[in-house]
Order: sequence, then C-alpha cells, then structure tokens
Amino acid sequence: MKFRNPPVNSLSLELLTELVISLEKLENDKTFRGVILTSDCPRVFSAGLDLTEMCGRNPAHYAEYWKAMQELWLRTYLSSLVLVAAINGACPAGGCVIALACDYRVLADNPKYRIGLNETLLGIIAPFWVKDAYVNTIGHRAAEQALQLGLLFPPAEALQVGLVDQVAPEDQVLSTALSEMARWLAIPDHARQLTKNMMRKATADRLLRQRDADIQNFVSFICRDSIQKSLQVYLEKLRQRKG
Amino acid sequence: MKFRNPPVNSLSLELLTELVISLEKLENDKTFRGVILTSDCPRVFSAGLDLTEMCGRNPAHYAEYWKAMQELWLRTYLSSLVLVAAINGACPAGGCVIALACDYRVLADNPKYRIGLNETLLGIIAPFWVKDAYVNTIGHRAAEQALQLGLLFPPAEALQVGLVDQVAPEDQVLSTALSEMARWLAIPDHARQLTKNMMRKATADRLLRQRDADIQNFVSFICRDSIQKSLQVYLEKLRQRKG
Amino acid sequence: MKFRNPPVNSLSLELLTELVISLEKLENDKTFRGVILTSDCPRVFSAGLDLTEMCGRNPAHYAEYWKAMQELWLRTYLSSLVLVAAINGACPAGGCVIALACDYRVLADNPKYRIGLNETLLGIIAPFWVKDAYVNTIGHRAAEQALQLGLLFPPAEALQVGLVDQVAPEDQVLSTALSEMARWLAIPDHARQLTKNMMRKATADRLLRQRDADIQNFVSFICRDSIQKSLQVYLEKLRQRKG
Repeated sequence: MKFRNPPVNSLSLELLTELVISLEKLENDKTFRGVILTSDCPRVFSAGLDLTEMCGRNPAHYAEYWKAMQELWLRTYLSSLVLVAAINGACPAGGCVIALACDYRVLADNPKYRIGLNETLLGIIAPFWVKDAYVNTIGHRAAEQALQLGLLFPPAEALQVGLVDQVAPEDQVLSTALSEMARWLAIPDHARQLTKNMMRKATADRLLRQRDADIQNFVSFICRDSIQKSLQVYLEKLRQRKG
Repeated sequence: MKFRNPPVNSLSLELLTELVISLEKLENDKTFRGVILTSDCPRVFSAGLDLTEMCGRNPAHYAEYWKAMQELWLRTYLSSLVLVAAINGACPAGGCVIALACDYRVLADNPKYRIGLNETLLGIIAPFWVKDAYVNTIGHRAAEQALQLGLLFPPAEALQVGLVDQVAPEDQVLSTALSEMARWLAIPDHARQLTKNMMRKATADRLLRQRDADIQNFVSFICRDSIQKSLQVYLEKLRQRKG
Repeated sequence: MKFRNPPVNSLSLELLTELVISLEKLENDKTFRGVILTSDCPRVFSAGLDLTEMCGRNPAHYAEYWKAMQELWLRTYLSSLVLVAAINGACPAGGCVIALACDYRVLADNPKYRIGLNETLLGIIAPFWVKDAYVNTIGHRAAEQALQLGLLFPPAEALQVGLVDQVAPEDQVLSTALSEMARWLAIPDHARQLTKNMMRKATADRLLRQRDADIQNFVSFICRDSIQKSLQVYLEKLRQRKG
C-alpha cells in the first residue's frame, strides 16, 4: 500500500521517478502481490502534470520529463501486480492517466471529486496512448466526446460511463479498495498476469514502437510560444489564487 | 447553419457535390466554427442514397457517384468544424451515415423518425468504412447485430444504444442542437481539432488506403443483374406509391 | 436444429470433430439457413474443454485437440448459417466460446446457469482469439476484468454486460430462440452473410495468420509439469465428486 505527497500531488519529475522506482521494487519483492494507489493530500488524488516542469525550461528538460511520464504509465499499465486505485479526491488529467492504468478504480462519493481527461480545456491535447487507454476503458464514442470536450465526470457519471468501477462513501474508499483487492488476489498470479498482458500488450506496444517520436512531438508542442504563454498565464492565476 | 432540399433529401450526385463544396467553403471561412446539419423536408432528415443514380446507368457514373459519397463522408468525418446533426425526420442508410460523421446527434422524439443502417433489407451491404464508423459509435456487438438485421431504431432505442446523444421534443430539436453547439464552441478550436483528428484519423485512413478498391467493389456489386433487378423493382414500387 | 450428448457435453476430440462435420454438412445443404445450438444434457450447455484430452497424453495429441478446437470456432464464428445459442444450462469456458461464436444468445433464467470464461480460476488462460471474440461482444474493459477474474455471470448480469442478448424462462428458451431465428431469416441471406463476414473477418484472420504458433503455444503450456499436475488434481476431485 502506498501514499504520495506534495501539495496537490502534481506529478513533478521527482515524484514520477520516485513512483517508478517504488513500483519496480514492489514488483521485484515477491512478498507483494498487489498495491493500492491512494493520496494523502486532502481532496486531491493527483492534480496531474506539474506545469512548472513544462514552462520556461529547455527542450532537454521537457524530453526527460515526458519520458518519465511515459515510463510511469508503461510500468503501471503493464504491472504484474494487482493495482487498485482508491481515488479519494479530484482526479483530472495526469491523475486520471494513472487511475486508468490500474486494474480497478474506486472513487469517493463526493461531487467535488471529478475525474477525466480535461486537457483540451487548457488548450493542450492528450497523447495517443492515453487516448488508447481511455478508449479501452469507456469505449470509442464516449472517449471521443469526453476528450474533445475535456469532460470531468462527477462520481455518478464516472460510474455510469465506466470510468470508475465503484463509487464508495468517502470514509470507505480504502476499505472498499481492500475488499476488491482480495477478490483479485484470489486468482492464481501467473494466469492473471498472462491474461492482463494479453489484454494490454497491443496498446502498450503502440507507445513502445513510437516512444521517441511521441517525446519529440511533446517537446515541439510545449516549446511553441502560444503554449508557453498560455501555461504561464495559467500558472500565474494559480499562484495568485494561493497568495 | 444549413438546410437541404429535394423531396426526401435523397443523396443525388448533385446534392453530394453541393454539400462537399459548401462544407469546404465553410471550413475555409474563419468566421464559421460550427455547423448544424438539419433538413427542411418535413418528416425526413435524408432518405439516403439516390437509387436513380444506381440504376440503369453506366459503370463510370456509378464510380463517380460512389466517389462523391466517399468524399462527403471523409469531409464530414474529419471536418475541423463542430458538426451537430439536428435530426428532424427519418434517418435511414445514407442519412444515418451523415449523422454518424457528425460530432453530436440530436433526434426528434417522434417514433416515426427511425435511424439506422438498413442496407441488408434492400439486399445490399454497407461499405466497410460505414461499418467502422458504426462500430466506433455503438460498439462492435451492437453494430454487428444492427447491420445484419438492418435495424432502424426509434428514438428511445437509438438513445439507449448510443446511436444518438440526445432525444428532444420535435419543436426543440434545433434549439437543443444550438445549446449543444455552444458547449463544443467553448473549447479552444485548436486543441479540439487535434483531438478529433487523433480519434478519427485511423478510421478515415482505412478508407483512404483502399479508396479505389472500394469504388471498384461498389461498381461491380451494383452492376450485377440481380442487384439491378431488385433496385428496379423497388424504384417501381416507390413510383407507384407516389402516383 | 441440433442437440449434443455426453454427460456434461465436455468438448472431447470426438465431439469437436463431429460438430465440425455436422456444421459443414448443414452449410452445404441449401435447405438449411439457420441452426439453433442447444444441449440435451440437463443443467449444462457445455462444461467446456475435456480435461482428459489435455492430461497425460503426448504433444501430438494436444496439438490435434487444439487444432480441432480452433476449427470448431472458425467454423461457427464465420458460419454462413444463422446460429442461435439456446443456452439451457451452465456455460463456462469452452461452452462460452461456442456461444460467443453464434449470432444470438438466449440464456435460461436460472441463477445456477452461469456463463463466462473462467480459465484463470484453473490457472490457465484463454487463447487470444477467444479474448478477441469476448472484447467484440462485451467491450474491452468488461472483457479485461471478466477474463482476469475468471467471472461467471448469472443470467441478469450476463444480460447487463451484453454477454447474452436475452434471458428467457427455462421452459421457453427454445421457443424464444426460434422466434429470434425467424427475425434473422427474414433478412436476405446474401446481404446478411456478406455483412457478417465483414464484421468478423478481421478477428478470424488474426487466428488464421498465427494458427500454428497458437497450437505450439497451447502444447508447450499444457506440457508444463505444473499445469499437468494441477489438471490432474482437478480431475481427481471431479472423479471423487462423482464416486
């Protein structure tokens, strides 16, 4: 079981790297068969990508950052462990990407905790592999609409569209995730792992085949003046709100 | 916003060409960001392909006709504009193909206004790219059944299977489409267009890769004696009904 | 219309071969346009693969057995006949594979008659082509979860997830299947067959392209000591239960 830290769990390069290393350790430690992903920040599962990593830095930094994001997704999506997301707070963008990579998603029943890929609202777009995972989870039509409109689903709607598997009262998210974990651990590991890999390999391979191109694509997009400007405006707003 | 004409809006070669040109103009005119497609023929959104274009003509004509149909679909399916279908009448076959290419579908709540791909009922089959769009919209299993049985869905069923996104009282179809358009136009164009393209490119590319073969396939199918005969019988019936 | 025999309709090599030959005959006899598949064993549609064919034999036998299973699936999945499954009993594993290959599934409304691909519970995994058919029928996410957990769905859940198309009282399964057959036979055969092929060809082709590799994969998996041991333990239990 794991918890994560910063103010709103934004996915800094450091946090991404830390998560990858932790997952790797748990996978290699045969005493662990499953992990519950949850947040120790009140009201936020993860706010997603860390905009300060994407703003006012050099291309090499953007490339390193994006590679770390790909790495985390590949690790979680193909993990041999059972991963259950206990989503105890808002779960937009990168937070949703991590949740989508788990085997099962439990969302706290609080209408303020919305989940979804809202990239278009910020003028940016989700990468194709996140789109693929979205389509796999909620189907092509729902993904097409949700991605274009940048929809964030409140719990009841998230459940209906299939973006989460269960909604639980806020104080029972973790216990619900634990009961669910027990169901998954009742299955022989080897057969479950091979089956998971069979289901997910084609989607992961699409990214693996064009990983560098995807990094280049991200870097050149992020380096555009218009994108840098709109990210700066957005960051400024966030800072003022805090201040 | 646009309306179309003939008796039942059957997709004549002339109408197809006109629609493609109009769409092209609107795409190039930067003052337009979205288009609502609707019908000014009472009780019919579009009756679909114009059988008189498919009957008693020469192969070159059939080829030109099918190419125009492909072109309209490619233009609408990949349009950079937001396309909302305000379906204010029956919407079988080719009418449904156009609706499927839009971003959002509102259907008038009248049980006589059914929507679907009913090609098999006439002894013909939908092309593979229409099948692909159908699968993308309602899923593989529902498409498999609906296509084989030539199902035409009344409003409530069309909504349930996901073939339309909303059902509205007949006199509110247009206003509903307009409100929906406002939601789509609230999204930054550039991010929305890139996202739409990411969702639809693979499906459109499948047609682009085998466009000529698809035309040849249509022409040789249509030229068969048995098909020509059954279309003539069907046309004769339609003429008698009018007379 | 057909019925099948053994104690629990387990798919012995003999039964598989017999089914393939029967289907072939019916396809070639132009007086038959549709077939209803049902069981004459009380309470079991089919218990699935015959474990005695997979245990304590030589690799050549396993290869022959698996080839016969592939053959039955290809025959049924691509059959030009309308196939309706009248599922009048439990329908796990291989039984479910056959049902998935039909055009329509009616399940008897008895909570003991569960249907699904429960391979992981036995420590084995479903082949990729069965996974593909599962995804086509219930969608990627539902298939991912059901396959990993080896879920067996009772009638109401099977209907909800889309694994069966209708649930009928136990004594009306056959009559329901017959009414449904009438709907399918109302469609011109040629157009329906071409449409069915268009929907299913890509999935069947994936198996055809790697048929030998799939056999090799099955044989080497089954020959493992650990798998042989667990199958023997399981068979022993079944024998004691009977004894």
